[in-house]
Amino acid sequence: LPSNAAAAQLPLVLLLIFGTAKLLAELCERIGQPGIVGEIVAGVLLGPSVLNWVQPNDVLTVLSELGVMFLLFRVGMEVRASELLGVGRTALIVALAGVALPFFAGWLIMAIVGVSRTEAIFVGAAMVATSVGITAQFLGAKGLLQERASKTILAAAVIDDVLGLLVLAVVTNVAEGQVNVIGLLTTAVVACLFTVGIAKFGSRALKHVVPKIEQRLSEREARFNLAIIALFALSLLAVYIGIAAIVGAFLAGLAFSESVDRRVKDLTHGVAEVFVPFFLAGIGLELRLSDFSEGRILLLSAVITAAALITKLIGCGIGSLHFGRSDALRVGIGMMPRGEVGMVVAQIGLSLGVIEKPVYGVIVFMAVATTVLAPPFLSLAFRGCKQKAAEEEFSLA
Amino acid sequence: LPSNAAAAQLPLVLLLIFGTAKLLAELCERIGQPGIVGEIVAGVLLGPSVLNWVQPNDVLTVLSELGVMFLLFRVGMEVRASELLGVGRTALIVALAGVALPFFAGWLIMAIVGVSRTEAIFVGAAMVATSVGITAQFLGAKGLLQERASKTILAAAVIDDVLGLLVLAVVTNVAEGQVNVIGLLTTAVVACLFTVGIAKFGSRALKHVVPKIEQRLSEREARFNLAIIALFALSLLAVYIGIAAIVGAFLAGLAFSESVDRRVKDLTHGVAEVFVPFFLAGIGLELRLSDFSEGRILLLSAVITAAALITKLIGCGIGSLHFGRSDALRVGIGMMPRGEVGMVVAQIGLSLGVIEKPVYGVIVFMAVATTVLAPPFLSLAFRGCKQKAAEEEFSLA
Repeated sequence: LPSNAAAAQLPLVLLLIFGTAKLLAELCERIGQPGIVGEIVAGVLLGPSVLNWVQPNDVLTVLSELGVMFLLFRVGMEVRASELLGVGRTALIVALAGVALPFFAGWLIMAIVGVSRTEAIFVGAAMVATSVGITAQFLGAKGLLQERASKTILAAAVIDDVLGLLVLAVVTNVAEGQVNVIGLLTTAVVACLFTVGIAKFGSRALKHVVPKIEQRLSEREARFNLAIIALFALSLLAVYIGIAAIVGAFLAGLAFSESVDRRVKDLTHGVAEVFVPFFLAGIGLELRLSDFSEGRILLLSAVITAAALITKLIGCGIGSLHFGRSDALRVGIGMMPRGEVGMVVAQIGLSLGVIEKPVYGVIVFMAVATTVLAPPFLSLAFRGCKQKAAEEEFSLA
Repeated sequence: LPSNAAAAQLPLVLLLIFGTAKLLAELCERIGQPGIVGEIVAGVLLGPSVLNWVQPNDVLTVLSELGVMFLLFRVGMEVRASELLGVGRTALIVALAGVALPFFAGWLIMAIVGVSRTEAIFVGAAMVATSVGITAQFLGAKGLLQERASKTILAAAVIDDVLGLLVLAVVTNVAEGQVNVIGLLTTAVVACLFTVGIAKFGSRALKHVVPKIEQRLSEREARFNLAIIALFALSLLAVYIGIAAIVGAFLAGLAFSESVDRRVKDLTHGVAEVFVPFFLAGIGLELRLSDFSEGRILLLSAVITAAALITKLIGCGIGSLHFGRSDALRVGIGMMPRGEVGMVVAQIGLSLGVIEKPVYGVIVFMAVATTVLAPPFLSLAFRGCKQKAAEEEFSLA
């Protein structure tokens, strides 16, 4: 029959990635590790590193973006904006220290290695931003979102994302040879106003407005549809302002957190449940183990990864030390994963021609390794924390 | 900031299509028309016909395929296989008559117009297959899936889909100059065994197996994840066998219908709710009104559309006349929409070079027009039917 191969493409890739991710997640849970590790490893297994059955492509990118968008939307719904703002000062210090230390460590290491100044600062920039999706998924799945450390991580990760994008803008400007100070300042101010504005006033405003709009609508699932429109609109607005779409998704969730019911959360949860594996496996897919056949590159990757882990642990840990040592440890570990954010910086550097292919490989290694290593450490750090009844967060009802 | 435009692309298209679809659905409901019409019209409005803000592309195709896949999976869950098999004989007659009449009508009209024999039979083939997604979405949204006429439509539409793909295979063979009889017979037999086998034994087998597997799994939402894996696997298997992925999706839903709980249905519903608008608007997007500036083409489109509507009404209505006139009318109207299925046939004809661009336009017009016209007629035909309490199907809980 005609066009069989084309028609099979989508269900094949859906089955391969979703099935493998869930299988490895199950295996990880059995040996006492977080399932999220299995889902990332599924990408490594299916991708160019091992089996080479699936290559990164546009369709997978879309599925992965949908996954992380709905993931952060869902997490945003579970926390109160007021509580995030309550840990705001600590989160700001955590984010600032967690940006500065990795950046300088990356720069310094690469300067010692002897690459160009631009390449060195790009590596630093790639080590800056935390992949909030990874930690958020872990915390949500384990019912830990209501912990003080968890809220600090979420608030700090949002600030960190804004800072990370500013750092990226600066190093891109440097690479292009002209620093646009006014443009950078405008972006910074607008991004701050947008983030704080939505967090501070969004949920209060929607609590009054949403029920009124809903009453006037005759379509089914009107509240859910309004939430989804807000999700897409704020994601888009965030990109236009110059920050990541997922920050907009998180803010949309936050804004709706006081005006959604169980039903809207369940429907959102369904979408996240289907697409998050594509986000997680998508990170693993980017790794190409063959890039590390050279001993020198492997050593450099290990050094950069160690630096990425230690600098976040120290920077973010010190920033939250007044919460006590165990919370500081949780925050430090929670900020470790670099995931897709680090890789985006590396790809931009590659496309600008300022970083070389081997260094690109090093950054991808660092991004995947920090992402795979953080969840088991998080498991240990949160051990002894009273887990919230699962059904109140995203688990079985 | 770098790559702003690329990053904005996905949220922009998500917002445009989802937002417009839901807005027009709301407007349609207000004027007493089914919301589904508004969602299809949203595609016409945003697409090349009017605003030209969105063009069909690979990403939209994926979102649309996800939409119709989850739509039929959800519908499958709501019906019992035994009940479908109970109306099986009627459905078979409905499907056969509903395939034969439109095929010969299309062929005859085009023969009178004077196109080549191959082009004429391709138009006939494009008029054969019902887009079960459209009627299923209407029936599900209105809480009418438990009606006898609804079950007859679903069963007939599945058979119709198998027949339609066989007709397509035959005409493609004819176009390529060699009819592979053994290949066609094999496809027909395997497709029948697959469909009837899953419908007959699937849900009974899973009712015993699923709870046992679930007990052994430690991952959250294990039952939902098993259902999703079955959805992707059966969709893929259906394509390999030579029938449409959505038939596999429907059968997966059917197989799980007796072993899913409220939770699995809600999570599935969330995914369908987000992606179905992309399927519906995607149909409207394909239309190019500028193709109909020529009076002759417009007239031909109107004639073909009228023939497509009348032949399904008569063929399917007569096939189910022993259920009484009102049920026969419902079945006849329910089988009218050709949606994406007719367009796929047209695209294959275009790619094989056997149909000309104007005739392609005529088929797309017929596909969109039958799809937009059917839901209002369905509304009238099902008026007076006791609608099932909405929360028992896919509405607000």
